[in-house]
Amino acid sequence: MSSSPVQRPVQSSSGGPAPLLEEVLSIAEELWPQALAESWDAVGLVTGRRDREVRRIHFAVDPVQAVVTEACTSGADLLITHHPLLLRGVHSVEAGHFKGELVHDLIEAGCALLSAHTNSDSAIGGVNDVLAGLLGVQDTEPLRPAEAGLADEGLGRIGTLTAPVTLADFASTVFSVLPAVAGGVRVAGDRDALVQRVALCGGAGDSLLGAAAQAQADVFLTADLRHHPASEAREAAAQQRPYLIDVSHFASEWLWLPAAAEALDRALRDRGYDVEVAVSGINTDPWDFVLTPGH
Amino acid sequence: MSSSPVQRPVQSSSGGPAPLLEEVLSIAEELWPQALAESWDAVGLVTGRRDREVRRIHFAVDPVQAVVTEACTSGADLLITHHPLLLRGVHSVEAGHFKGELVHDLIEAGCALLSAHTNSDSAIGGVNDVLAGLLGVQDTEPLRPAEAGLADEGLGRIGTLTAPVTLADFASTVFSVLPAVAGGVRVAGDRDALVQRVALCGGAGDSLLGAAAQAQADVFLTADLRHHPASEAREAAAQQRPYLIDVSHFASEWLWLPAAAEALDRALRDRGYDVEVAVSGINTDPWDFVLTPGH
Amino acid sequence: MSSSPVQRPVQSSSGGPAPLLEEVLSIAEELWPQALAESWDAVGLVTGRRDREVRRIHFAVDPVQAVVTEACTSGADLLITHHPLLLRGVHSVEAGHFKGELVHDLIEAGCALLSAHTNSDSAIGGVNDVLAGLLGVQDTEPLRPAEAGLADEGLGRIGTLTAPVTLADFASTVFSVLPAVAGGVRVAGDRDALVQRVALCGGAGDSLLGAAAQAQADVFLTADLRHHPASEAREAAAQQRPYLIDVSHFASEWLWLPAAAEALDRALRDRGYDVEVAVSGINTDPWDFVLTPGH
Amino acid sequence: MSSSPVQRPVQSSSGGPAPLLEEVLSIAEELWPQALAESWDAVGLVTGRRDREVRRIHFAVDPVQAVVTEACTSGADLLITHHPLLLRGVHSVEAGHFKGELVHDLIEAGCALLSAHTNSDSAIGGVNDVLAGLLGVQDTEPLRPAEAGLADEGLGRIGTLTAPVTLADFASTVFSVLPAVAGGVRVAGDRDALVQRVALCGGAGDSLLGAAAQAQADVFLTADLRHHPASEAREAAAQQRPYLIDVSHFASEWLWLPAAAEALDRALRDRGYDVEVAVSGINTDPWDFVLTPGH
Amino acid sequence: MSSSPVQRPVQSSSGGPAPLLEEVLSIAEELWPQALAESWDAVGLVTGRRDREVRRIHFAVDPVQAVVTEACTSGADLLITHHPLLLRGVHSVEAGHFKGELVHDLIEAGCALLSAHTNSDSAIGGVNDVLAGLLGVQDTEPLRPAEAGLADEGLGRIGTLTAPVTLADFASTVFSVLPAVAGGVRVAGDRDALVQRVALCGGAGDSLLGAAAQAQADVFLTADLRHHPASEAREAAAQQRPYLIDVSHFASEWLWLPAAAEALDRALRDRGYDVEVAVSGINTDPWDFVLTPGH
Amino acid sequence: MSSSPVQRPVQSSSGGPAPLLEEVLSIAEELWPQALAESWDAVGLVTGRRDREVRRIHFAVDPVQAVVTEACTSGADLLITHHPLLLRGVHSVEAGHFKGELVHDLIEAGCALLSAHTNSDSAIGGVNDVLAGLLGVQDTEPLRPAEAGLADEGLGRIGTLTAPVTLADFASTVFSVLPAVAGGVRVAGDRDALVQRVALCGGAGDSLLGAAAQAQADVFLTADLRHHPASEAREAAAQQRPYLIDVSHFASEWLWLPAAAEALDRALRDRGYDVEVAVSGINTDPWDFVLTPGH
Repeated sequence: MSSSPVQRPVQSSSGGPAPLLEEVLSIAEELWPQALAESWDAVGLVTGRRDREVRRIHFAVDPVQAVVTEACTSGADLLITHHPLLLRGVHSVEAGHFKGELVHDLIEAGCALLSAHTNSDSAIGGVNDVLAGLLGVQDTEPLRPAEAGLADEGLGRIGTLTAPVTLADFASTVFSVLPAVAGGVRVAGDRDALVQRVALCGGAGDSLLGAAAQAQADVFLTADLRHHPASEAREAAAQQRPYLIDVSHFASEWLWLPAAAEALDRALRDRGYDVEVAVSGINTDPWDFVLTPGH
Repeated sequence: MSSSPVQRPVQSSSGGPAPLLEEVLSIAEELWPQALAESWDAVGLVTGRRDREVRRIHFAVDPVQAVVTEACTSGADLLITHHPLLLRGVHSVEAGHFKGELVHDLIEAGCALLSAHTNSDSAIGGVNDVLAGLLGVQDTEPLRPAEAGLADEGLGRIGTLTAPVTLADFASTVFSVLPAVAGGVRVAGDRDALVQRVALCGGAGDSLLGAAAQAQADVFLTADLRHHPASEAREAAAQQRPYLIDVSHFASEWLWLPAAAEALDRALRDRGYDVEVAVSGINTDPWDFVLTPGH
Repeated sequence: MSSSPVQRPVQSSSGGPAPLLEEVLSIAEELWPQALAESWDAVGLVTGRRDREVRRIHFAVDPVQAVVTEACTSGADLLITHHPLLLRGVHSVEAGHFKGELVHDLIEAGCALLSAHTNSDSAIGGVNDVLAGLLGVQDTEPLRPAEAGLADEGLGRIGTLTAPVTLADFASTVFSVLPAVAGGVRVAGDRDALVQRVALCGGAGDSLLGAAAQAQADVFLTADLRHHPASEAREAAAQQRPYLIDVSHFASEWLWLPAAAEALDRALRDRGYDVEVAVSGINTDPWDFVLTPGH
Repeated sequence: MSSSPVQRPVQSSSGGPAPLLEEVLSIAEELWPQALAESWDAVGLVTGRRDREVRRIHFAVDPVQAVVTEACTSGADLLITHHPLLLRGVHSVEAGHFKGELVHDLIEAGCALLSAHTNSDSAIGGVNDVLAGLLGVQDTEPLRPAEAGLADEGLGRIGTLTAPVTLADFASTVFSVLPAVAGGVRVAGDRDALVQRVALCGGAGDSLLGAAAQAQADVFLTADLRHHPASEAREAAAQQRPYLIDVSHFASEWLWLPAAAEALDRALRDRGYDVEVAVSGINTDPWDFVLTPGH
Repeated sequence: MSSSPVQRPVQSSSGGPAPLLEEVLSIAEELWPQALAESWDAVGLVTGRRDREVRRIHFAVDPVQAVVTEACTSGADLLITHHPLLLRGVHSVEAGHFKGELVHDLIEAGCALLSAHTNSDSAIGGVNDVLAGLLGVQDTEPLRPAEAGLADEGLGRIGTLTAPVTLADFASTVFSVLPAVAGGVRVAGDRDALVQRVALCGGAGDSLLGAAAQAQADVFLTADLRHHPASEAREAAAQQRPYLIDVSHFASEWLWLPAAAEALDRALRDRGYDVEVAVSGINTDPWDFVLTPGH
Repeated sequence: MSSSPVQRPVQSSSGGPAPLLEEVLSIAEELWPQALAESWDAVGLVTGRRDREVRRIHFAVDPVQAVVTEACTSGADLLITHHPLLLRGVHSVEAGHFKGELVHDLIEAGCALLSAHTNSDSAIGGVNDVLAGLLGVQDTEPLRPAEAGLADEGLGRIGTLTAPVTLADFASTVFSVLPAVAGGVRVAGDRDALVQRVALCGGAGDSLLGAAAQAQADVFLTADLRHHPASEAREAAAQQRPYLIDVSHFASEWLWLPAAAEALDRALRDRGYDVEVAVSGINTDPWDFVLTPGH
């Protein structure tokens, strides 16, 4: 994790009234309905008092120490992260554990924490729709449709590029769209092969490897691909399609933050509220530097 | 739950230095080793920063709103309760849930929370030893010995009174020893029968009904006895021994607080620390009044 | 458990023919359909030969020794109890165990045993409807509707009193309606608060605490409330509504017996049969005496 | 099942006192300790009053209607069967189910029922030792030693014949030793091969097929061998040793009855009691007739 | 298992083209849809390359060594067996285990292996329909209808004979229809009773004993009936109907082979293919000889 | 996966006799005892006949198509891979699935397949010892000792460098020692921090993150680290030690192959056998190229 800033869009104050946390949560629910979350997930409000005013909202991917410090220092009343803080249930939030430390920091600073995780992956205009849009993938539909949602809701996306490009060129586009992280973009496949049908899943998407193959994708982009799932997928494809692109988990989800911030800001302004909305400038990809054959 | 004070021993300040929370925890571990806790239990520190000074410690049975408010208002740095706050794991401590509200109150007030539950039941000098001592039950041993503890550690106690008394008289002793609560003391058995061998378990002890019978107790005292376990135990005993005495869960455990406060205070003073130690005066038995045939 | 009689309605003989047990079972099935029983329950015929004549039927809450002796001594051919004898499956009915002893007593005396438990709780005109009727609770519906039953079938009831009364007055009504038992009626809440919307569940109803709150009850009456469920419910309600009334498990279900006896008797007479129907006069609440602050 | 008598040893009365059931059970426990029973088994007393006198004891393999009727008609006070009546736990013993019918018959006739099942299989001098003895198998040890028993206790036996015999001749010996049943004795293997090392397990022993192979048995005798276990064992052995002999489940266990009756009778007489002990003459093998190629 | 031939229908070559394995599988799927297989089953292709030509198909009940050797020696390209080779999942197919040995034999000889098990039991025209047809059982329907199949698909069959016959005569018909095996046909019931309503299940059908009784069968024919299921079924029927007929597992399923071979052959010829189809002449019933009272 | 050769040590033939596969397996068991494998693993022989001669042995990390083709083409009689082919049990090895295709290729070519996986990780001189040796990590002991092995056996290793080096320099050593793969070496931590205590685990070692921290490692090297485990470990360490180095799963295990080949070759020669032993030159890391910020 390095502290070099990535990007930091900020909506400045307009002087209107501030909403209560309860009201912000109600808008968040419209944007990223909790019913869309996977059954194993733990989304929603983690800390905070619902009757407090929210003047400043901070967005980030990971609820880690640097991010919480940044949010609290900046005077944020609400931190919205993609990843849950307490995915596994806890019996204690004492500060001797790093997660309890964050709970203390947040409550002491009066900053609420909200997680929008697989619900924001699945939602229309969520993580995967943003990713597809930035990569020029069109006519998308979910790789795994939501069980009880709209047709356009669900995990991952499959769609097409307006024209075929080589795998190398598509990888370059991916590289240029994503925020820069040490590990870069790894590709399995033939550089010169033309690809047009693209499957993608922000974050760790190895559970969708089979769905991408079944959807006859030319290439599947996701993060956190380990040796065995990647190797077995390549063998099952006889080293042919779908090719694989493995990107930074953080980077693939960070792209959603500006869009999410803007959507929330717009909804608040529509209701006459004035809230300052910021996106964290901290790179929370865990890797600081990389040595590759090309260096 | 009523707010009429029950008892409130307070150790006054002596001017010595204050220990860090970490140091208080270390003493608590000696008094009530966490290894004695049942596998399903969740004991230990729940909120708080280990590097903070502790000037004032507050003891109570239940970590409920009135108790937490009392502790925070009184300026306590540490609240020690018998019952755990987060027995079931949680994914959120937001203040919209009554347990999250308490977490916020405690952290905002800088008051740590420590639970000593089945470890303090089982420990030497713990809940059950205090109860036995106050009732004059001697030569005690555990009803269910600890699996990996000393011979005197374990759940419940079985021992003898110095002389036989009628069941009615023993019940009167129980009634006079316990803090007054609405529900009183319920007895199943023959008022005039003489009892001398006494089994007891502070709190809900129905899992020890069989052990009490096997230990040939004349009477078994515990709390929270429901119809079916009580009825089946009475039938299995053919309405004979062991007779049953059902008391308030809160009352049976409250008795431990002054003893625990004193033991902790003594250990702190032995190390040269000066800490004010108080016992909550709030009755957290949930029942406010009772109508019985005698009224 | 004391043997002081509670009440004992008896239908005298009219000289008509006696039905076979099989025929009585068929009527019981109409009154308390076994399909309404909870999945964990064990209702239905426990002992007896279906081709035997039934001249005398005895009703009671608990299949305990005193009740079985009473039924057999009185010459009953069928004992109908609310509680099952063999809720947990058995591999033996030898008389060395108190339940096997009852099986021997019943079979030797030619007395069949039938249990109508959660099916009679859930049924229209069953335990909860009788309780609601005696307390003046009107326009009732189930707290937890039966999964595959009629709209009026299910566990617990929620309804309204014709006019608001203080909690203390409602508790007095409860006390006067229930058969007298040692433990009386325990109340959590403000004596002077007015209540009108009443939730209730005869027997142990702590699993319905959440449903009572969600149904916006002013007060929830049930039995066997232990410290933790009661305390957590009071905290979740911030010591406000729903208030709680805890009564004797036995007493809350005994009320059903006369109504059940009458319903069965009427149905038998409608078919031209002459059967003597009695209700047990034995108090099988396990508690014999109580000491309360007021005494 | 046919009612043609198989054998019926009877010990006649000598005029001594009769033991209580409790005393007979105590002797049975010495002969066939319940601790030797498999964890899934349900052995011990099923019906009966422990304080009743036992003048007549009846032994049989199966607690079925014909056997129970025979025992009750003959005035038996105790029926001892190899197979348990209530192997699966029951919630009812009403007479409409065939097992409840037996419970009623037994209790009405004052006849207790005791099961000695896998404990008598495993015990020294039990089912398998009797079977080995009658077949001339010597120097036996258990195929699966008891986990917490003596070295000679456990399931199945492996031992040697004094001299090699052909498989056909060994099968003839088996046939002549067993009580005649319709299905006879089935053999898988080469008639003319010589066998000397014999594994055996009375009743259904397919779980010991692997143990018999590992113990390098020439032949394994047991009952209830189905197609797949038998076929797989023959394939694993490449159609060589161990050969298999499949006999009647009933027949293989019936052999134990006279020995068990005699052992119990002797022990009772040693204590000065006079009890009439009989072995049932009813063949409870379910098969009545067979059509084979040879007929 | 003996190698005396049972029957061996062979379709001779006509000179047409050979299908690919893929095409044969597609026809097999129409005849015995895999969706009809039980959830615990493992049907379908076990070894083989789908792009190989199939000139010769061999049918057998069991994929055992003698059968695989016969198929490979005869030059078969595909062996179709009723029983699966790898019902339990394997982590190795090394030849040191008898199943791995078969995998090596098959692959080395270029012979594919296909299993049609519970799908062929359940299918129209499958194992049970063939059995019913040969026994003259008419107007059949499944004993346990397929969950998601046609009305005539499912496990077992129940139907009627054109006229009542004695149980002994029906058993003789069974005996004469089945291929001769050592163990013959075992019958439980009254030889002279008239039977007309017949339930049957090829292979091990004890899970359908209850369904046969509920369908009011006069007699239930199946294989692999062990002592306890048979005995309990006879007791539940009070030794009356349904009577039981226990046959060889192998024999009851072998009957399907010629019909299956013919159906597949016809379907192949309809598509213009020329494939030689044979049925194995090996008796894979594990029993070689039997000793019965009648010998 | 690219086919550019990495390294290929070959032992040439000396004219001695060839061992049987059985004998090679016996030596492999001494080098990498199967008892050291994790309970979830599937090590040992996967295909092959134990009585065949082995003239040529081929080593590789992954049993993938390119590797199997290389082994079969080169005339290998035995392929030894680190990864199991059938880690999850299979019910079919038909060639339509890529794993079944490999089974067919191997058996048709007469090439056996042996997997030495977590047993070779844990063994003395195994994967982790080789890795430690090449990196100059000394005085090693296991991170998680084997439950029933020698003190030096177990998963992962912890040891020390002869002198402290900067994290950047240590990463350079790692990079230079590993075979070149596209993804290179990723590092989380301060480039200039000095490290000396090194924990490592070839392959995916995230389950040892806690053990590495508890062993007070300065740096932990392993493969397949995903975002969440890496991020949580960095947070738990407050971004301090242990630093993390994430390498190619393939590369970290490939290093073992030459050492394993040499150890096996030496053991075979010690027994007088002449076997040609080769190490695969195929890079089976799934990634073909990478785009990083530095490019």
